[in-house]
Amino acid sequence: MHVTIHDVAARAGVSPATVSLVLNGRPCRVSENTRQRVRQAAQELGFRSAAPRPLVGILLPDISNLFFSSIGQAFLLEARAQGNDAIVMVHGDQPGQDLANLDTLLSRGVGGVVMVRSARTTPEEEDTLREKILKSRIPVVVMDRKMDIPNVKSVLLDNREGARMAVRYLLEQGHTRIGCITGPLEDVVCRERLLGYQDALEEAAIAYDESLICQGDYRPEDGVKYLPYLLGKSVTGIFCFNDMIALGVYTGCRAYHLRIPADLSVIGYDGIPFCETLDVPLSTVEQPVEEMGRAAATLLKQMMYQPQCAQDRLFLPSLQIRASTASPTDPSRR
Amino acid sequence: MHVTIHDVAARAGVSPATVSLVLNGRPCRVSENTRQRVRQAAQELGFRSAAPRPLVGILLPDISNLFFSSIGQAFLLEARAQGNDAIVMVHGDQPGQDLANLDTLLSRGVGGVVMVRSARTTPEEEDTLREKILKSRIPVVVMDRKMDIPNVKSVLLDNREGARMAVRYLLEQGHTRIGCITGPLEDVVCRERLLGYQDALEEAAIAYDESLICQGDYRPEDGVKYLPYLLGKSVTGIFCFNDMIALGVYTGCRAYHLRIPADLSVIGYDGIPFCETLDVPLSTVEQPVEEMGRAAATLLKQMMYQPQCAQDRLFLPSLQIRASTASPTDPSRR
Repeated sequence: MHVTIHDVAARAGVSPATVSLVLNGRPCRVSENTRQRVRQAAQELGFRSAAPRPLVGILLPDISNLFFSSIGQAFLLEARAQGNDAIVMVHGDQPGQDLANLDTLLSRGVGGVVMVRSARTTPEEEDTLREKILKSRIPVVVMDRKMDIPNVKSVLLDNREGARMAVRYLLEQGHTRIGCITGPLEDVVCRERLLGYQDALEEAAIAYDESLICQGDYRPEDGVKYLPYLLGKSVTGIFCFNDMIALGVYTGCRAYHLRIPADLSVIGYDGIPFCETLDVPLSTVEQPVEEMGRAAATLLKQMMYQPQCAQDRLFLPSLQIRASTASPTDPSRR
Repeated sequence: MHVTIHDVAARAGVSPATVSLVLNGRPCRVSENTRQRVRQAAQELGFRSAAPRPLVGILLPDISNLFFSSIGQAFLLEARAQGNDAIVMVHGDQPGQDLANLDTLLSRGVGGVVMVRSARTTPEEEDTLREKILKSRIPVVVMDRKMDIPNVKSVLLDNREGARMAVRYLLEQGHTRIGCITGPLEDVVCRERLLGYQDALEEAAIAYDESLICQGDYRPEDGVKYLPYLLGKSVTGIFCFNDMIALGVYTGCRAYHLRIPADLSVIGYDGIPFCETLDVPLSTVEQPVEEMGRAAATLLKQMMYQPQCAQDRLFLPSLQIRASTASPTDPSRR
């Protein structure tokens, strides 16, 4: 016997339309109780909907960056475990490309989108993106880079607090001249981390010295490039806005025969897996990337099916102290 | 004035159907000359097709693995530069999941797919996958893990040759007992690398000793786990089937206070960016991941629009000799 949607509806005591809505995972006002009855009836009858599973998407800046690719991987696996098909698109941080990707996903009928928007966006582009999201009528979860939009939920990390923790730790170790290699300052994440750096200095009553701040681009090359400049500024510690920059500082130290941490303390941000495998394991501000990726999948699902339960998530980073940080040993360089 | 497809057709001197085919990037027999005329007419008139750009997809095992995520990133950027929207799906090497992902992409109307299939597939699953690809009627490019299917093109690396180069180099340095930590041997890539290992031994007239082969899973943990066993087998060099395993060997050596390369030579496979930033930069078999990702995008595009030009691509790896390999210094351990 070929089982149809009508058989399932009859068994569950609902209309065929309700069966379709529930089994295809469409947003609708059907109680969890009824949903379960429909699913059970479908299962008992061996009914398999011909329609594809709902599709959700995640927009990321760059999957060759382990931070984003780990978030993406966790999101994809969790979304699939929750019964959705999941895809990734990449905008490469190119202005306007996040908007173009969002358009593509919408035109392909995704049921929900998680997005890390482009770091480089003009205020006008941001307005256009905001408007597009407002009009999209599908659930959108904003991740990593904050955007204030009504009805949009977010999965964020407290970047300011993370930076404050890192710099406070260096200060506690006795460092007073702490260099900083940032990412692009158009990036809201980066601006928040810089505020955290300033917070920590202010708490320690140390004046903020702008000449110790170097603007990089989250790449190892930045560490290599700015290390000699910062050494010339007599820093005894460097706070890197991601671990990739810190790796570049390591490379530079090797070239100058400087020992980490005896000659220079280094602290990173992110907690990519390679921090631990370095000869001098890297102290870093660890972001719970996998939890954040999974949380994004869960939040998106809630927005699709139980919007009343959907809540913003703010994650707190943790400070991982390893071997790359110590008290400054050479008083002449303080 | 609202510009329609008819205006473009009139200006280009072709039918509206041809305009639609060309601007929507559908496979069709239209000369490149005519295509260009249509595109130019559309541009001059400011005509923008309402239809979305063609969508292509890439199926990858795991984007938290830098090897695959770098391929994916290069593919996505190149595909977009060529005028396609591009998405990633991840199957996590779970049996049957590559097939399920392919189904999803097909049901969402992709115009072409690049796929790295699951490493763990039963022969039956492989048959089903082969049949699905044969029936799919869209261009499919197989990448990294070979499959013989008529009409399917591939972008592959000569894995056997890469392994042979690595082991031959260790032999030339004077190593005769060379341990090997592999990936899962169901993986065709892994089997090819093992053949390359055997080739090199055979060339040097050294008997193959199966007890020096440890089957891992491409993870750092494998390196940590099998290092003591292989040291017990008096190896002086270890060939790791990827760089992640080699990182684990580094971690293990640190724990045992062994110096690389004085006490043990280590060579990896892949060429992930971290090889160079290690305290002892890792010698490795470098795969041209970005070229391969771009080549996959180009080949897919050719299959979509100029199938007569589409050719299989076989890349050759290159041996990057860094500081982790040297002659065995301790004769008692040879």
